[in-house]
Amino acid sequence: MAQETQFVLNSFSFLIWGVLIMWMCAGFTMLESGSVRTKNASVICLKNVGLYAIAGLTFYLVGYNLMYVGVDNLIGGFRIFYGTSAEEQALLGGDAAAAAAVLENGNSVMSDWFFQMVFVATTSSIVSGTLAERVRLWSFFVFVAVLTAFIYPVVGAWTWGGGWLDQLGFQDFAGSTIVHSTGGWAALAGAIIVGARHGKYREDGSIKPTPPSNVPVVTLGIFILWMGWFAFNGGSQLALSGVVDAVAISNILVNTNLAACGGFIAAIALSRPIFGRTDLLASLNGAIAGLVAITAGPDIVDHYWAIIIGAVGGSICTLGMKMLERLRIDDVVGAISAHLFAGIWGTLAVCIVAGGNLLVQVVGILAVGAFVFSASMLTWVVIRKLMGVRVTLDVERHGQDVVELGIEAYPEFVVLQDPDL
Amino acid sequence: MAQETQFVLNSFSFLIWGVLIMWMCAGFTMLESGSVRTKNASVICLKNVGLYAIAGLTFYLVGYNLMYVGVDNLIGGFRIFYGTSAEEQALLGGDAAAAAAVLENGNSVMSDWFFQMVFVATTSSIVSGTLAERVRLWSFFVFVAVLTAFIYPVVGAWTWGGGWLDQLGFQDFAGSTIVHSTGGWAALAGAIIVGARHGKYREDGSIKPTPPSNVPVVTLGIFILWMGWFAFNGGSQLALSGVVDAVAISNILVNTNLAACGGFIAAIALSRPIFGRTDLLASLNGAIAGLVAITAGPDIVDHYWAIIIGAVGGSICTLGMKMLERLRIDDVVGAISAHLFAGIWGTLAVCIVAGGNLLVQVVGILAVGAFVFSASMLTWVVIRKLMGVRVTLDVERHGQDVVELGIEAYPEFVVLQDPDL
Amino acid sequence: MAQETQFVLNSFSFLIWGVLIMWMCAGFTMLESGSVRTKNASVICLKNVGLYAIAGLTFYLVGYNLMYVGVDNLIGGFRIFYGTSAEEQALLGGDAAAAAAVLENGNSVMSDWFFQMVFVATTSSIVSGTLAERVRLWSFFVFVAVLTAFIYPVVGAWTWGGGWLDQLGFQDFAGSTIVHSTGGWAALAGAIIVGARHGKYREDGSIKPTPPSNVPVVTLGIFILWMGWFAFNGGSQLALSGVVDAVAISNILVNTNLAACGGFIAAIALSRPIFGRTDLLASLNGAIAGLVAITAGPDIVDHYWAIIIGAVGGSICTLGMKMLERLRIDDVVGAISAHLFAGIWGTLAVCIVAGGNLLVQVVGILAVGAFVFSASMLTWVVIRKLMGVRVTLDVERHGQDVVELGIEAYPEFVVLQDPDL
Repeated sequence: MAQETQFVLNSFSFLIWGVLIMWMCAGFTMLESGSVRTKNASVICLKNVGLYAIAGLTFYLVGYNLMYVGVDNLIGGFRIFYGTSAEEQALLGGDAAAAAAVLENGNSVMSDWFFQMVFVATTSSIVSGTLAERVRLWSFFVFVAVLTAFIYPVVGAWTWGGGWLDQLGFQDFAGSTIVHSTGGWAALAGAIIVGARHGKYREDGSIKPTPPSNVPVVTLGIFILWMGWFAFNGGSQLALSGVVDAVAISNILVNTNLAACGGFIAAIALSRPIFGRTDLLASLNGAIAGLVAITAGPDIVDHYWAIIIGAVGGSICTLGMKMLERLRIDDVVGAISAHLFAGIWGTLAVCIVAGGNLLVQVVGILAVGAFVFSASMLTWVVIRKLMGVRVTLDVERHGQDVVELGIEAYPEFVVLQDPDL
Repeated sequence: MAQETQFVLNSFSFLIWGVLIMWMCAGFTMLESGSVRTKNASVICLKNVGLYAIAGLTFYLVGYNLMYVGVDNLIGGFRIFYGTSAEEQALLGGDAAAAAAVLENGNSVMSDWFFQMVFVATTSSIVSGTLAERVRLWSFFVFVAVLTAFIYPVVGAWTWGGGWLDQLGFQDFAGSTIVHSTGGWAALAGAIIVGARHGKYREDGSIKPTPPSNVPVVTLGIFILWMGWFAFNGGSQLALSGVVDAVAISNILVNTNLAACGGFIAAIALSRPIFGRTDLLASLNGAIAGLVAITAGPDIVDHYWAIIIGAVGGSICTLGMKMLERLRIDDVVGAISAHLFAGIWGTLAVCIVAGGNLLVQVVGILAVGAFVFSASMLTWVVIRKLMGVRVTLDVERHGQDVVELGIEAYPEFVVLQDPDL
Repeated sequence: MAQETQFVLNSFSFLIWGVLIMWMCAGFTMLESGSVRTKNASVICLKNVGLYAIAGLTFYLVGYNLMYVGVDNLIGGFRIFYGTSAEEQALLGGDAAAAAAVLENGNSVMSDWFFQMVFVATTSSIVSGTLAERVRLWSFFVFVAVLTAFIYPVVGAWTWGGGWLDQLGFQDFAGSTIVHSTGGWAALAGAIIVGARHGKYREDGSIKPTPPSNVPVVTLGIFILWMGWFAFNGGSQLALSGVVDAVAISNILVNTNLAACGGFIAAIALSRPIFGRTDLLASLNGAIAGLVAITAGPDIVDHYWAIIIGAVGGSICTLGMKMLERLRIDDVVGAISAHLFAGIWGTLAVCIVAGGNLLVQVVGILAVGAFVFSASMLTWVVIRKLMGVRVTLDVERHGQDVVELGIEAYPEFVVLQDPDL
């Protein structure tokens, strides 16, 4: 292929995959707003639009350079007011001689930026789901700013940015650990600091059921995420510049789909013995967990292994949802099970199935976990100190929508009152 | 164009169109979950995610090879544990010499697989809509497995796989018959075996109105389907390797859109005399029927003919919905009218408008109809024998959601009771 | 790059961006159907599907040629039954010698048509939001036909079609004025002629609050619009034929995203002092306004300017919503503020930030405003004369859904009665 054609296709594929990954934010929003009580559905919507807006700015202002530019071992640099390279500006200004220098980069500078930016938001979306219905709106936004400006970029610098984990040979193709476990650890820290929803875990040891309030909307969210994952994993090939990329991306999309299928089937089958019924939310989460699990190595496992990796991921998610209930850790949408537990599994599975250094994988999982969990704990504690993290019992009773936004999500529908609050 | 550029673009277009066709599953889900009673909305969501997961696995394990590999006249072969070709594996393994052999194929092996796989799910989605609110969850899943592993692949082998209908010269560009009528026949067989919803056709001859329960969600489904259809028809050019493909796909997308416009306008105009009012569901179905009708030949008809083919499709759909009511065949979303009736029309229309052998088209329509209908009848009867196909009257009364899943789709909203059950 | 590769990529990018822009219709539909009272949600859905169907036909039959073919200064020509060029038909018919002439055009004829067609619908969608809940269904459809066949194409002929404003040097890359302000002016004219919803502005000077009836659906609409805007602006580069296009489109997508982020953040921050609370709808509209504002020049402003342009756009929108309330102009979704006010700002901003003739920008804004507003006023007045524009008070009371369509959007949910009607 001509070098210019490669450049165009590399850049274009970053952008079109990036647009589909941005769309995953809508998927998380639908999944979460359909899962919460109706009285908190507006706030979770605003949190999700807000986190995408904040992540887009912080990653531009701080995160991108920390993650990618001048990373030595631990962290990159700091620069504001950046953008296209001088060569690209010259080219756009009409200096055709600059084209050669531009082409050297393989893709346009900001197409890569765009692709990396949409990944950040995913990490934050995981947190919003777990902490729904009791974390304060503006406290959550502050956490998102820290997560997307610092915590995620540091993990990214260690790995995709070329830092110490990358140099050790840590394998995580599209981010089972780097994106999904990072989000999961941040969510877990938040769940511990913020605490469970009032009344979720009763004094008699029983658990208050909190089924989704709007199932079609939850299901839409699952489809959006499944769709967007093709871009998430396929785009992580980071190029479309020849026959190797085309073959690799094709295999990636097929494996991504098979793993999701496997995750769904395993979870729906397991849900009956574990939850006593064909459980819709566990089944749907199983598909997500299958997707998370394959994300560490969709390019190098055989197709039948993708089914198995996904199925194990779906099973782990179902079991994890049950385990977190036992531990009285309140995760509204099951995000910790689907993203953290299945993410750990996926990071190990790629190595078990396709070869590599399992010890390095374990080191990566532990290092990222230790860093993200402790940094998140610290952040949550500081936020609690400065502005509080949790709404009052009265807000929980009346709903965040009415108190924090002055509206209801469905103001015209007659809603059943929650007898426990 | 360079051969490698052609390969990359062919593969990439299969994938990106395929992602948009997968998205149509979300469209069917929204259309259906917004059309059913709220008490059955969760189950229809789970059915639709499940059918996509099942179709993805059965088509991998059985269907694809039956449909495409080694088809003589009637059917292909059987093989498991397949994937990328040996040449592609060698190339990915670093053997650059394998590139020439890989390029020979024109596109990556699994990009074609991915594109074909997403078509299968569409066929199943048609069935789920017709049979909503009374077919049992697991019985439906078993039918989907048979449909996607055997019934659809046999039809596909006869036609796109190069079998006897293809050799006769049967024209069906993107599947008015092969996909949509196949789904429609399977749905019709199911509707006959499973029977109408209790109370739908009253003893006094009147019909119980069952309008959509959530119109915005239905409308969202229509937009998703309309959007996905551009990929469904455009991608069926099966290549993006040069000027001919680019011109053809452009015409295809324009015709696809004009036919949908024509179908909508005709249906909304006809709905008033036929149903006594501007009928929302009939109008929206008219757009779908226009899309189905153009699907057999979007590449070869002139643009004004596309409008007319779509308009006739929309009219047939509206009349068909009325006719099925008269025949007391209960089709919850009008899928038989939109997909089967308009699919037959489209398969004839391409030949009437653009030339070809009308007799062959009739033979194809009848052969596919006879095979799919009888195979589906047989499958439904066997399922009925083995595990039952229909929920009890009590389940119909309380809703499938509560009984089969233990949840409600909208548990917090106060819902009007159905006085007839 | 080879000429044929350029042709293929130019055409393909028109199509794939076009599909994503068509998807914005679904975004407007969700935004609007979630914003209206539940009793009018079905009609607004049907209006939106209908406007896309109508726009697709009128732009084919009349609008496209008026806008683009043979434009001298004011307006193009009139032709029906057009389509692919003679060269393209020859090529598709097997005449390989025609390829050279086809390639001369740079892209396939109908890929450009498709891309232009989806822009038209956006303009109409703006109108439907403002006038929701009281404009009659068929009167609205007639207005859409006039807007898409004549009014928008005339504006387009002056500018993108090469007419007098283009010759003056008017800058409006993707349509802050041409698309968004045009829609906004048409909506404003309609709001004046049709009048406010009954009871919205009370005799005591207070304003009846009419918050969204379904917030998750509104939020989904915002995400769809944000997503589609990448295509709206990125596709307006009108080519993907080399390194310059790839670099430009990358910058465009980044600026588009940053402006939306800036618009959201500014609006959510401003909403508290202006509306007395963190206002969800104002915040979401702020993102839209940021997108509208950057649309006039996403290709030529620096990234930090994109943030600022978007933030100012979001602020203007928030203030505009308050101002229109004071003027007692009833805009159900805030479309006039988001599209007209922010569109004017964006058209000025591109010139302020990136250079150009500010006077020409003002002339363009005024000329388009004067033409669209007066032509729309005339059209609305004629429609009022011929068939009426406004539903009766009784229809407002019972809802358009029941009276105009004979259905309800959510027939099973128990709905609170509006005490004011």
